[in-house]
Formats: sequence, structure tokens, C-alpha cells
Amino acid sequence: MSVKVAINGYGTIGKRVADAVSKQDDMKIIGVVKTRPTSEARFALRKGYKLYVAKDGAQAFADAGMEIAGTADELFKAADIIVDCTPGKKKDGSGTTGEDYLRVYRELGKKALFQGGEKHKLTGLSFNSTANYADSLGKEYARVVSCNTTGLCRTLYPLHQEFGIENVMAVMIRRAADPYDSKTGPINAIEPEVKVPSHHGPDAQSCMPGLNIQSMAVKVPTTLMHMHQLAVKLKKPATTADVLKVWEASPRVIFVSTKDGVKSTAQVMEIAKDLGRERADLFEIAVWKDGVNVVGDMLYYTQAIHQESDVVPENVDCIRALCNLEKDGKKSQAKTDKAMGIVKW
Amino acid sequence: MSVKVAINGYGTIGKRVADAVSKQDDMKIIGVVKTRPTSEARFALRKGYKLYVAKDGAQAFADAGMEIAGTADELFKAADIIVDCTPGKKKDGSGTTGEDYLRVYRELGKKALFQGGEKHKLTGLSFNSTANYADSLGKEYARVVSCNTTGLCRTLYPLHQEFGIENVMAVMIRRAADPYDSKTGPINAIEPEVKVPSHHGPDAQSCMPGLNIQSMAVKVPTTLMHMHQLAVKLKKPATTADVLKVWEASPRVIFVSTKDGVKSTAQVMEIAKDLGRERADLFEIAVWKDGVNVVGDMLYYTQAIHQESDVVPENVDCIRALCNLEKDGKKSQAKTDKAMGIVKW
Amino acid sequence: MSVKVAINGYGTIGKRVADAVSKQDDMKIIGVVKTRPTSEARFALRKGYKLYVAKDGAQAFADAGMEIAGTADELFKAADIIVDCTPGKKKDGSGTTGEDYLRVYRELGKKALFQGGEKHKLTGLSFNSTANYADSLGKEYARVVSCNTTGLCRTLYPLHQEFGIENVMAVMIRRAADPYDSKTGPINAIEPEVKVPSHHGPDAQSCMPGLNIQSMAVKVPTTLMHMHQLAVKLKKPATTADVLKVWEASPRVIFVSTKDGVKSTAQVMEIAKDLGRERADLFEIAVWKDGVNVVGDMLYYTQAIHQESDVVPENVDCIRALCNLEKDGKKSQAKTDKAMGIVKW
Amino acid sequence: MSVKVAINGYGTIGKRVADAVSKQDDMKIIGVVKTRPTSEARFALRKGYKLYVAKDGAQAFADAGMEIAGTADELFKAADIIVDCTPGKKKDGSGTTGEDYLRVYRELGKKALFQGGEKHKLTGLSFNSTANYADSLGKEYARVVSCNTTGLCRTLYPLHQEFGIENVMAVMIRRAADPYDSKTGPINAIEPEVKVPSHHGPDAQSCMPGLNIQSMAVKVPTTLMHMHQLAVKLKKPATTADVLKVWEASPRVIFVSTKDGVKSTAQVMEIAKDLGRERADLFEIAVWKDGVNVVGDMLYYTQAIHQESDVVPENVDCIRALCNLEKDGKKSQAKTDKAMGIVKW
Repeated sequence: MSVKVAINGYGTIGKRVADAVSKQDDMKIIGVVKTRPTSEARFALRKGYKLYVAKDGAQAFADAGMEIAGTADELFKAADIIVDCTPGKKKDGSGTTGEDYLRVYRELGKKALFQGGEKHKLTGLSFNSTANYADSLGKEYARVVSCNTTGLCRTLYPLHQEFGIENVMAVMIRRAADPYDSKTGPINAIEPEVKVPSHHGPDAQSCMPGLNIQSMAVKVPTTLMHMHQLAVKLKKPATTADVLKVWEASPRVIFVSTKDGVKSTAQVMEIAKDLGRERADLFEIAVWKDGVNVVGDMLYYTQAIHQESDVVPENVDCIRALCNLEKDGKKSQAKTDKAMGIVKW
Repeated sequence: MSVKVAINGYGTIGKRVADAVSKQDDMKIIGVVKTRPTSEARFALRKGYKLYVAKDGAQAFADAGMEIAGTADELFKAADIIVDCTPGKKKDGSGTTGEDYLRVYRELGKKALFQGGEKHKLTGLSFNSTANYADSLGKEYARVVSCNTTGLCRTLYPLHQEFGIENVMAVMIRRAADPYDSKTGPINAIEPEVKVPSHHGPDAQSCMPGLNIQSMAVKVPTTLMHMHQLAVKLKKPATTADVLKVWEASPRVIFVSTKDGVKSTAQVMEIAKDLGRERADLFEIAVWKDGVNVVGDMLYYTQAIHQESDVVPENVDCIRALCNLEKDGKKSQAKTDKAMGIVKW
Repeated sequence: MSVKVAINGYGTIGKRVADAVSKQDDMKIIGVVKTRPTSEARFALRKGYKLYVAKDGAQAFADAGMEIAGTADELFKAADIIVDCTPGKKKDGSGTTGEDYLRVYRELGKKALFQGGEKHKLTGLSFNSTANYADSLGKEYARVVSCNTTGLCRTLYPLHQEFGIENVMAVMIRRAADPYDSKTGPINAIEPEVKVPSHHGPDAQSCMPGLNIQSMAVKVPTTLMHMHQLAVKLKKPATTADVLKVWEASPRVIFVSTKDGVKSTAQVMEIAKDLGRERADLFEIAVWKDGVNVVGDMLYYTQAIHQESDVVPENVDCIRALCNLEKDGKKSQAKTDKAMGIVKW
Repeated sequence: MSVKVAINGYGTIGKRVADAVSKQDDMKIIGVVKTRPTSEARFALRKGYKLYVAKDGAQAFADAGMEIAGTADELFKAADIIVDCTPGKKKDGSGTTGEDYLRVYRELGKKALFQGGEKHKLTGLSFNSTANYADSLGKEYARVVSCNTTGLCRTLYPLHQEFGIENVMAVMIRRAADPYDSKTGPINAIEPEVKVPSHHGPDAQSCMPGLNIQSMAVKVPTTLMHMHQLAVKLKKPATTADVLKVWEASPRVIFVSTKDGVKSTAQVMEIAKDLGRERADLFEIAVWKDGVNVVGDMLYYTQAIHQESDVVPENVDCIRALCNLEKDGKKSQAKTDKAMGIVKW
């Protein structure tokens, strides 16, 4: 019998999680919540998802000629678990916070998972499939960490397991806006995060406690992917080949190379298209194979992160962990990936 | 019995035409020609296409561990028709021209179709499904016009048929590079085409002879889509509603609206993702519904063109026309579109 | 005796007008109004401008260690004329409108000129040095039209005088943000103005009544300059040479050419640097000489507009017109240009 | 008596060095070498620089109506020192290398200084005013290090002197093209340097021998400035205040702050305009004051580098060192800066 999943917030992440869940055989989407009758709502209907709305939102959908199946509360009651992909408070102070929604889910006695836009303290439990799947088994609430933190966990955790990590210095070169976003800049500037550490280091520690990591960040005028440049001091000696071997065996990490013409994030994203991925998404972290350099006890590497999609398989795994559908994280990852067509290539 | 199609040049257009042909029931891909063992070649093999190479290119593919099925000439001989997607001469003068290849195809007695990078005079016959399908019936060679010209044909030809066109002024705001291209700029500038007319107007006349069209062009720092702003003097009076009605009935033209949040090409391309289109391609021309304005006898409108993919269904139709598989252009378009999942929405 | 000029709003335009006025011998800056102690305020002091603030703003400047000379009202009272460069209402509804300030200036019995962000109806009088200088002689209030409208006036008015204009179709390819603005996008998209005419055409008519002009517009991801592509139907026959000759004699119009390597707005702005212009500003409209094409009775041309600075000399001329310092517009232009180092080259 | 300076190559750096030298009282420009009669050549004449050309280049200048003063060789012979700003070999293999020119200068017995595009081994002596002025006193040839290395020397050397540096990890976020360059991309991608160390770390060691520095680099779609994020392990304990104090006393280092609205390189460059700098150049390294963070024995900071101009004052100092005009580097810096208007603010 399939776990009944409700999606609260059908935007960048919500719509992707809905599609990924739909491809699994142990869970299914019973409905998605939208607050306004946008074209995204129309596409949800087109895909066959039932639309649920806030109590006072029905009329707007009726006016737009979109059929709704009920209220958000009705959906939550019918669900086993809720994937919260709501955007949080807006800059003008309107909107509903994760805290508000957590209260709703708790009152209804429903499990829920949140996204990395929320803080760790909301649930006290942060989730990454590779780093700490087991911690979430049977729990009520978890937070799937952000796209960047997911990227850090995917490559750092296996190193930590294999060689031990003395410390990490990570510089995050962040995309300033998503591909569909035409409002946000900069058009021609680099914007530094002046706070050190940037939030990324501490956030990685929420899934990898005790990891000695420092992070700095900048925003740059691109929409495709984030890039990380990392300097890692290993505890045990390792060669470049040793490191590559560890990542070859790690889920959702792929190699690209400038020698194959993959010189930038532009060519990385073309791979997602050539692989036939839905929405041209790249769920894996792309590590430049010829950018992996071991110098003494230091490992240097560069990776690219598709901010719109890398957390999607983690959401599926997190549902499985919270609902106790699978005890073994590696098995859940394998099952998720097979259903989603994520294969090493 | 399926028409046997060879693809000469498996790049931006070639790989998309291969996929589109593969979805039709009256034609099939028997192989694709690649000159070098790039990652694109690897993806071709992954998709199940047989690789053919230039005479002296076999070793490089062997070295890269890629299986080849034979030489380009062998493929051409086995084909009924060749879709030429070769890039033409490079800036340094190397490479093979369309003229060179046409000679090869002619000597082998094979039909062939070329892309819009070639000039009209190469084949003396330019093709657009909406504007002049019938002209290519049973012919030996044709040229599918460029992405921009295809966009002009799709929306102007139906107007011409219905209302008559006195004259057209078109300004083409062109993307400067494709999404996977990280070499080409500008990063922060607008570059005008100083020649008037730009090549787009005369090229549109190659499919719509006698159309009185003038065109100007600029290049801008974006990779997603071209945009056209058009001023059309109609011969017969028409309202905005009349114009919308004509395009509603026209193949491969869709409407978007700023009222639905589609404020730029960024949101147009998100639609392609939400539609589940392979490679996130948008084969249709997107016309802003709230950007269609009739003022007196003048019609003003704005449309966006996905430069990587709008010509792909025309390539399929062109194969059908040259091979006499279907006499009626509208029927071919409907057949192509159904197989490719191109539906009005 | 110099006319005493107050600048209300020391931002992009205000700071440039202050510098330009300071270079004239018949007017001088007696102070500038700033609402907050930003780094722009600090640079104003550094340049020797006296700072005036809103009534309740003094403390903030004191806290920032910036000396103020008095309140805005005190400055206005001491001035002969006020150049209003205030930004108008903000999106959140706060801020002061041009109407509010006009009331203040009127009560104080002071002349004032506004910028193109205000509507024509605020003053009922729009100003461009080339098109309608004489209309403002001795008047109380005028509005210097926007950067784009200024660009249209500079090149269209001389054509209108010399050959007569039957009609104009203008497509404005607009920069989406200014160079110092790192908040605004799009990073990678083209955004059309769906309303036709865009506001530019009607605005040009505010200085050139009766001109039959239609305009469309898009926004593109660049910060340097706007670009206009224009199609003009002339009443009297003219050759390309005739047209060039007219503009050679027109103030604040310069020629650039792709043959000299000026292929885009990037190289146009480099010229401003090479000319040693302060802030690397280009006060002139740059017309591509090899982009001027006459075809039959139609003239096609492309021009680039430096949005931050082209209106600055017009502000100086407008002060002169309102204050009756010079009856002859051409003489005022020549005087302004000589002082600012604007010479044909 | 002024030292006679010849500029070989009047491009981005050459034209700026010419202007900077012209402002000094102990040196003067006696001519500049251009190979082709571009608009830059025209601007050189406009500024009053005499043009010298390659032996076979005179006719092209005559055709373009530009007066030349002689051949490059004649200029070199008349000079005391040559500032080589030639671009080196082009991608197609044409052009003249630094080695070629060094041979010419040596045969003529002339001192010469080169730019950072050349390798250290060309002269065996790399120059930065702050780090190693004295090393070049009276020498024949030196190389002024690149814009990025100059930035590293300006802030790292004073730290090294004051606290000692255990090691440095530097990530360079590089602008992909200069403002006037409209050919180069990427428009929308991040391109990593896969080689570790990138060339920047070793290059810094050419001026600061023994410095333990590692560097990684990416290219991003912006034209304004480079940005560096640095993690420095200090030998002696230091507070943030200690570090700021050191840089306050260091030449050509300025502070900016997000609290003053300087959130990105866009606002940094606006400062150069507000300072009235010619060509809107910023010769100083801009360090974010609120981005300076000391955590334990680690110092983290972020700085921005104006790639077109930061090496210009170093060129002036280097002339002075090679020609023995001033023994004390600090005095030379002060003299250069005063003449160029580079003041702490």
C-alpha cells in the first residue's frame, strides 16, 4: 500500500518532488496545494494532480476555470505525510512561516518534511540521504537541507568516512537567480557574502556533526548552477585516484571533464538535456574529474550544483525514512534513483 | 515501409531531428554522422543511434572506445534521404561547405535537406511547413529556413492568407549564444546589425515570395530565445480578436500572457519544462496574447522563438514532402505534432 | 550675476547636473538636498556641495559625521531655480511625488524643472534643447524629457525640419538596470513591453507635437546603454549622405562605425572613457554611420543612448531657458557644450 | 630632467600608463607605438601623444589620415625606458612575443618593463610596489605582475610583515571579459579553472618568495572587476581591528562596506566615478571592511580588483625603480599617488 503524500506549495521544488514521488511504487501524490490560480496551477491539473486551496481561495480558482478538489486542510487530513515546499514569509511580512505550518501539521498528527529554506531548529533534524538517512527513521519531522548543503554532503561525507577530514575550506560561487526568474539581478556584478562563515558551513554541520568546515560565498550573474571550490585537509593520505574511486561508488555524484568539452556549467546542464532528463534537471552533483587535485595532505576540487533539482531525490528518500518504508539508506537511494532514471554514466 | 533517414552532423539541430524522426511511424533514423568522438557522440550511442564517421576518423573513435558502424559514405548510400545539419565552414576556413555535401549527395542520387545556415541559392528551394509545404513535394533538395525565418513564416503567412499584408517591419532581438555555449559574448552590451535589411527579411521572402518585409536586428546578452517585434500593415481590416482567431487555428503557434506571469523569455522557457518537453524544448512560436495590438490598419505583436528547436518539426515535415509521404501539409504537420507531443494548450 | 541653482535629489541625474551646472559661468550650485547620509552624500561634501536635508533628517547626518548647511526649505528659498531629481513614489507607496514638490516650489514662488520620470501633465511643458527650447523661455516649470525621448528628439527633430517625417516606427531595446544597480534583473531573458505604443512614442510627441510616431520596447540584460532601431518615412526624398549631413550639423549627435571597431554599446562607452569624460559619461547620442540606410522613401538607423547622462546638458539648457538667460536655443547648447567639453570629434 | 618613456602597445594598459606617466614630474611620454590605425590611435593623437609605427605600417596610417612621427625603432632609440604593453602572440600564432621584444630592447641597450601577461622567467624579476620595490632598483628589466597578483601583494604583504603568514588559500572569482569587449563570453555560465594551483598563487610568490599560498579560480559572466576570497592563517595573533589598522596604513588599499550600500562590484566601480577618476578607473584594491573576519588564528577577507587599472601606478613606480629615480618604494608610491589623485578617503 502506497504512502499518501501531499505537497504543500507547488513551485520550483514542489512540482519536481511531485513528479519524483509519482515515479515511486511505494508512495503516491494525493494532491497539491496552490494559493493562487497561476499557470503553474494549470500545469498541475494538466499533469493529473488534484488541486487543493486555502479556505478563502476557492473563488479565484473558479474564476480562472480551474477545478479544485478541496481545501488544504482536507488534503492534509487525508495524507500520511506532507512535503512542505512553501516559500516562507515574503519581504513585506506577508505569507505563512514554516513554524505556522508545522503547528498545523502537528495538530493534525501528520508527519512532515521541510526544505532547506527553513532553519535547522525548526525540526531539530536535518536530512541528507548520504550523510544521515538513518537519523530520520520513523521520526515525525525533518528538514531536507538546501541544494548547496546537499552538494557538500554528497561529496564530503564519503571522504569523511573513508579518509577522515581534518578541515574544509569551501567557497561557494552562487547563481544569483533561477532560470525562470527575470526580476532578480545582478546583471553585471559580483556580490560577496561578507559574513564568515556564510550559512553553508554551519548548515553542513547539521547533517555532518563535528565536521570542521569554514565557508565563504559570492553571488554571480548566472542562473544555471552553483559552483563550489573546496580545499579539504584529509586525515589519512589519499591519492587523486583514491578520491575518484570513493566518489565513483557514491550515489548522485557524477564526473565531468574539460577534456570532453565540459568547460563550464553551461555544458554540464547540456548533459542533463542529452540524458533526456525531465525539465532538463541534473539531480547529481557534477565534479570535474580533471579538477580533482591532491597536493600533500590537501585535496582540492570543484563541483557544480543544479539548485532546482539536486534535493529532489533526497525528498523522496526522506519520505521513506520518516515513514519507515526502508531501513537502509543506500537501498532507498538505489530505489529512488532507479525510478527516476538516475544512473551513473 | 519507413523512409530511411541519415543525419549528417549530430549537433544542436541534428540530435533533435534524430529524436523527432524516431517518434514518427513513417520514417526512421538509420545512423548519424559525427566527425569527432565528443561526448555528444557518446550520447548518440547511448540513445541507440549508429555512429558513422569520415573515412579517416575511425581511429579516434576506436581510441575513445566508441563503436562505429561504418563510414559516412556507407550511411549515405543506405539512406533514402539525408538531413544535413553540418555547421559549414569554420572561421579559419576549414570544414566542409553545404555545396561540397550537396555534390556528394547528388552523386549518390540521394535526396537531402539542409538547414537555414545555408543560403537559399544552394537548393533554390526553401521550406516552411506552414508557408509552402507543397512546393517541396517530391523534390530532390530543400532548405529548411532558419529559426527566425520559421518564426516569421508561422505567424505572418496565416495573416497574409486571411487579411493580406501590405508591408511588415520586423525588429529581431537576437540571443547572442546558445545555452550550452560559454565562449561567445557579449556579457554586457547590445550589438546592432548595421546592414538593413538584416538577412531575415529577404530570407522570409524565400518562403513567402512577394511579401513586402523589412527587417532590422540586434544581438543581446541572453541565451534562451530570440524575440521579434513586428509592425504589420494589413490589407483587410481586422480586429485583435480576428488576429488571435487566425493564430489559434495555426499550427505551432501558442499564446502566452504577462497576466499569467509570463513576463519574459525566462518564463516562456519554463513552460517547455512544465510541459515535459524533452530537452526542455519549445517547438512552438510563443506570441504574447496581451501584446497583440491593432491600431487602425496596423497590427503590432511580439513573439519569442526557441532557436534550438522550432525548426525541428519542419525538418520532419520536409522529409515527408521531399519523399512524397504526404501531399497535404496540414496533415503532415498534424501527424508530426501528434508524434512529438506538440498540442495546443 | 549667476543664477542660483538648487538640486533636490542627488542621485544618478542630480549629481551629474550639479557637476554640469558648476562648469557654466551663468549659473551655480548653491546646495543639494539629500534625505539620507549615504556615501553619495559624502561624495557631495567631498566635491564641495553644501548639503541640505529634510526637516527631521538632521540627526542622521550628525550621527554619520556629515555637516549639513540647513533644511531643504531653506535651500529652496535661497535658490532662483530648483532642479528636481527626486525619484518619486516608491513601490511601497512611500516617498514624495513630483506633484507634492511642485506645490512646495509654487508656494515659495520658485521656478523648477523636473525629470522625465514625471509625466508631461505635471508641468504641461516638456523640454528638449533641440526640439523646443523656445517654448520654455521665461516659463515657471518644465520637464526635461527622459533619456530615450531625448535620444528620439535629437535625431528625429532635425530630420523633421529638413525633410519632413511622414511616420516613424521605433523599437527601443532598453538596458534593464544601471551600471551601479546590482538588484535588478533579468540576468538571462528578454522582457517585452506588451503595451503598444510603449510610452516612448507619445512622450516624443510632447516635444514634437504632431509627429506621427509608433513605438515598441523590450528590456534586455545589459547595463550600459539603450539602443533604438528606427524606420522613418520621409516626406522629401533624401540620400544617406543628406541624412548624415543633417546630423553632422546637429548638436549632441555623434557618429560611430563598426568599421572603426565600434560593434556594440561596449565600444561606444569606451569612447567616453577615451575622451576623458567625467564618470565616463557620453552625453551625445551615438548613431552608427554605417547603419544609416535609405531605401526608397524610408530611412533606417540605429542609435545608442547613455541613459545616465544624455539629459544632463538639456537640464543646463532648460535652466537657461526658464531663467531667460539666453533666447537662442542653439546658442545655449553651444555654451553648455563648450563648458562641458562636448565637442564633435 | 625627465626620464623619457616610450609606450609599446597603446591598449587597455598602455593608454592608462601613458596618462599616469604624463602626470609625473620626473618622467614623460615621448611617444607610443601602435600597429594599426584604430580609433585608439586616433584618441592617442587627440591626447597629444606622438604615434610611432612598425616599419611596414606607415601607409595604413597615412591612408587613415593619421600623422605618424616615425618607426617604433626610432622611438625606442630615443627613449630611456620602454613600457612594453604588447599583447603577445595571438591564438592563431601571429604577433610578437615578449621574448622577441626583449631582444630588441637589449640590442638597443634600453631598459624595459613588461606586464603580467608575460611569465616571470622572461625577466627573472617581478615587481610590485608594496612587496619588492627595492629589488628592481637600477635593474635593466622587470615585469609588473598582473592585476590579480597585484591585488594579492597589496593586502598580503603588509600582513606578512606585521603578523607573519603561515598559509593562504585564495579563490579568485574572475571577470570573464573587459567592459569594452563584446566578443567574449560566457553570457550565462561559471567556468572553473581545473588546474590547482591556478597560476595566481605561484605568481604571487614571484614577488613574495616563500609565501605559502594556494589558489583556485573560476570565471564568471561579469566585466567590472575580479573578486578574491581569502583565508589566511596568521603566525601572530591579531584582531580584526589590528588587521584593519595595517591596511589603513598600506598604499592603494581602500575600504568599502555593505553598510554604506556597497553590496557588490557594481557599487565599488560607482565610487571610482564619484571620485572623478579618469576613465572611471579604481587604482586601489577595495576590501570589504565588514567582510574582514578573524576566527581564531584565521583571517578571512574579500577584495575586489579593477583589472584594467590597478597595475597602472605600479608601472610608474617600476619606471622609477629601474631608472633609480627614487630609492625608497614608499616615497615613490606617495609621489605617484599624489600625482594621480590616489588618496585615502
